Amino acid sequence: MSDSQFIIKPRWVIPMNGKQATLEQHAVLVDAGKILAVVPKNEIPEWASDWPVVDCSRHALMPGLINLHAHSSMNLLRGYADDHALMPWLNEHIWPAERQWVSKSFVHDGSLLACAEMLSGGVTTFNDMYFFPQATIEAVKRSGMRAHIGLVIMEFATNYATTANEYIRLGTEVRDQYKSDTDISFSFAPHAPYTVSNATFEQISTLAEQLNLGIHTHLHETRAEIQQSLEQFGVRPLDRLLALGILGPSTVCAHGVHLEQSELEVLATQGTHIAHCPCSNLKLSSGISPVAAALRAGMNVGLGTDGAASNNRLDLWQEMRTAALLAKVSDDNAESIPAYTALEMATINGARALGLQDQIGSIEVGKQADLIAVRLDDLNSLPCYDPISHLVYVAGREQVTHTWVEGNLRYHRSEDGQTVFQGMETEELRSIALQWQLKIQSSQS
Amino acid sequence: MSDSQFIIKPRWVIPMNGKQATLEQHAVLVDAGKILAVVPKNEIPEWASDWPVVDCSRHALMPGLINLHAHSSMNLLRGYADDHALMPWLNEHIWPAERQWVSKSFVHDGSLLACAEMLSGGVTTFNDMYFFPQATIEAVKRSGMRAHIGLVIMEFATNYATTANEYIRLGTEVRDQYKSDTDISFSFAPHAPYTVSNATFEQISTLAEQLNLGIHTHLHETRAEIQQSLEQFGVRPLDRLLALGILGPSTVCAHGVHLEQSELEVLATQGTHIAHCPCSNLKLSSGISPVAAALRAGMNVGLGTDGAASNNRLDLWQEMRTAALLAKVSDDNAESIPAYTALEMATINGARALGLQDQIGSIEVGKQADLIAVRLDDLNSLPCYDPISHLVYVAGREQVTHTWVEGNLRYHRSEDGQTVFQGMETEELRSIALQWQLKIQSSQS
Repeated sequence: MSDSQFIIKPRWVIPMNGKQATLEQHAVLVDAGKILAVVPKNEIPEWASDWPVVDCSRHALMPGLINLHAHSSMNLLRGYADDHALMPWLNEHIWPAERQWVSKSFVHDGSLLACAEMLSGGVTTFNDMYFFPQATIEAVKRSGMRAHIGLVIMEFATNYATTANEYIRLGTEVRDQYKSDTDISFSFAPHAPYTVSNATFEQISTLAEQLNLGIHTHLHETRAEIQQSLEQFGVRPLDRLLALGILGPSTVCAHGVHLEQSELEVLATQGTHIAHCPCSNLKLSSGISPVAAALRAGMNVGLGTDGAASNNRLDLWQEMRTAALLAKVSDDNAESIPAYTALEMATINGARALGLQDQIGSIEVGKQADLIAVRLDDLNSLPCYDPISHLVYVAGREQVTHTWVEGNLRYHRSEDGQTVFQGMETEELRSIALQWQLKIQSSQS
Repeated sequence: MSDSQFIIKPRWVIPMNGKQATLEQHAVLVDAGKILAVVPKNEIPEWASDWPVVDCSRHALMPGLINLHAHSSMNLLRGYADDHALMPWLNEHIWPAERQWVSKSFVHDGSLLACAEMLSGGVTTFNDMYFFPQATIEAVKRSGMRAHIGLVIMEFATNYATTANEYIRLGTEVRDQYKSDTDISFSFAPHAPYTVSNATFEQISTLAEQLNLGIHTHLHETRAEIQQSLEQFGVRPLDRLLALGILGPSTVCAHGVHLEQSELEVLATQGTHIAHCPCSNLKLSSGISPVAAALRAGMNVGLGTDGAASNNRLDLWQEMRTAALLAKVSDDNAESIPAYTALEMATINGARALGLQDQIGSIEVGKQADLIAVRLDDLNSLPCYDPISHLVYVAGREQVTHTWVEGNLRYHRSEDGQTVFQGMETEELRSIALQWQLKIQSSQS
């Protein structure tokens, strides 16, 4: 027996393996960061009889959630500018603030706060896109999360880089530095069709293939983006990116709000993934992504929060519920995106989109022990006829009590309400947030 | 000084009085259940200098939330049947379950659980509609909430009553019994256009005027309801109810999902109120109510959760956020229903709809001390540039730490995470919920 061996005994196991919806009276054995076995509680092998047990008898145990589209360091701009559409929000509020504030320390501190928010809400992996990715990685390593880092590329100058070539050079340097890190993976992240040239997209397509990296971009987020592309390039952004070799089975497109049926079929054929961000799409008045139709077309759809400046919560529970509820109206069918499908979007679908489906996204023997326990016996969750329904339509992120990444308990909320992160002090994090708030606030007025 | 006199010192006061958005460094003095004064913290009068102080220095203090459309006892059917449209959901799932289970004790116990859920989420008043209203009132009295009780009336027989006349008789008896209770007020609640005859609607219109009671009904929740009315009566339900004298300044229509511009103008002219239930409307695939247009037409719009079988949370924070987010897409304008408007919908607009605007819904001298404190300094709420934005776009119901009704602290969550209700034990409530779950579950399989 070693410290890295333990048994979790939950009320329900929600494996997300496409076979059983729930397992009752089962235990999950974790060894050296991986899932060693899933067995009935009364059939725990003799050799594990002295392993420590984590009692989760009031909980559902499920795979850690995967946030498929984030700009983590924007946590420092949470609620900075509300009630604006995407383009004025970017041009008049967010980009000016970023010009003033974005730096290595801004990115590190914002990402650290985002990691804490995500871990406490049961997110174990996120797919990021922002400047100074090395600073985000440093925060991720401290938090103990798993991250897929988008190496951002755009044509215009920011505090991080000046030219597309410089963005690419800086990004590949970071990737080279961490390429042997098993908890960090990478994509090239050409920001969006309206900020990246054809030549740069082509260069990225080639490089991604050479280096075996994925691609993470924004696509068809707003009608204005499509209109601008039609005026400038004579085609919709999706057609342009297709021609430039950007769309494929290793590409994650964030948003995909305005997609016609024929475009869903193109994406399905290409194997391209969508990171559906329903709350951000509503808040910026972008629209409602046709995700039920996308799933019917055979596409893989995961869920993202977007950044805290446009959501304003990095809360996958909120995204699951909103995705399930919205689809019923936008698809005009109360059976669209039932609870189980929403759970798949937040777990195994996200893993597939990042090419990590053999490592994370479900509770299966041999996979990483990225696991969360969710209390389902608080008064607001009773009665409970079906834990799957409650996880999507009832539970809040505050019901997450344990978040393990690779078998390490990175976040825990105890019975007496104390929250503990491994390697991060809550008071230190609060103090970091308040220092940035004071600085940024002083420049607002 | 008496026990009923105290001072609350929050970080921010959010008065919802139509004048200031936020007051900083202010204190609220409560005396005998009412708001006695709102003064700068350093100008507390000498005569109150020895009053006990409730330190809410990390909190926003705001009026208690008003849930404008609930079926509280349906908490016992939370998550009982998901992912169905309204009509099959009612016909195949909910009505059969109600036939089997609804009784005085079902209604009492379900309402008690709903009161606990609502108090812990900062709701101090709710507008209910269900069978056995006396059992709901008994639960409300125990919880210490304020309620507006809809005396339900329909044509068909249930466990509660057999004929419309019997519903009316039972309802008026309950109203007579509690008419001097200042915390309980009443409406007649003809269930819906598709369950109540013309003759009964006319009778209710007359009786409501004679007894000076409001009216609470469902209206234009689904397209099917409108279609059925066109087939049966040759007019849309709104036109029918208008002709029958049901729509007026004391009438609250729940849902109002499918309303044309001309109908919004009719309702505005009549002074009829809408209880917007965005989550329930999404979940049952009913549609999206045009609330931004309703507000522009001059209507008063509050927020409701509907019952826990169709939501599945009695969570006004969820409704505020969803109302604000949805409107930005359905109204195609990112400025629609900004945060402050969503807060108005959940507070003062709800009070107006119930004719209680002189007593509750804002923090103003002379009003009832129905107040809630909401912590805004947890990690997930930092940084905070604007508490109004955070209350709508960031806060969860778990951030409510104090819920006062008429100056009594009916719910409190302490620093160590312990939650305490006045007059109700959490373990007793949990046990009640679990007993019903077992009973109802055994009949499901």
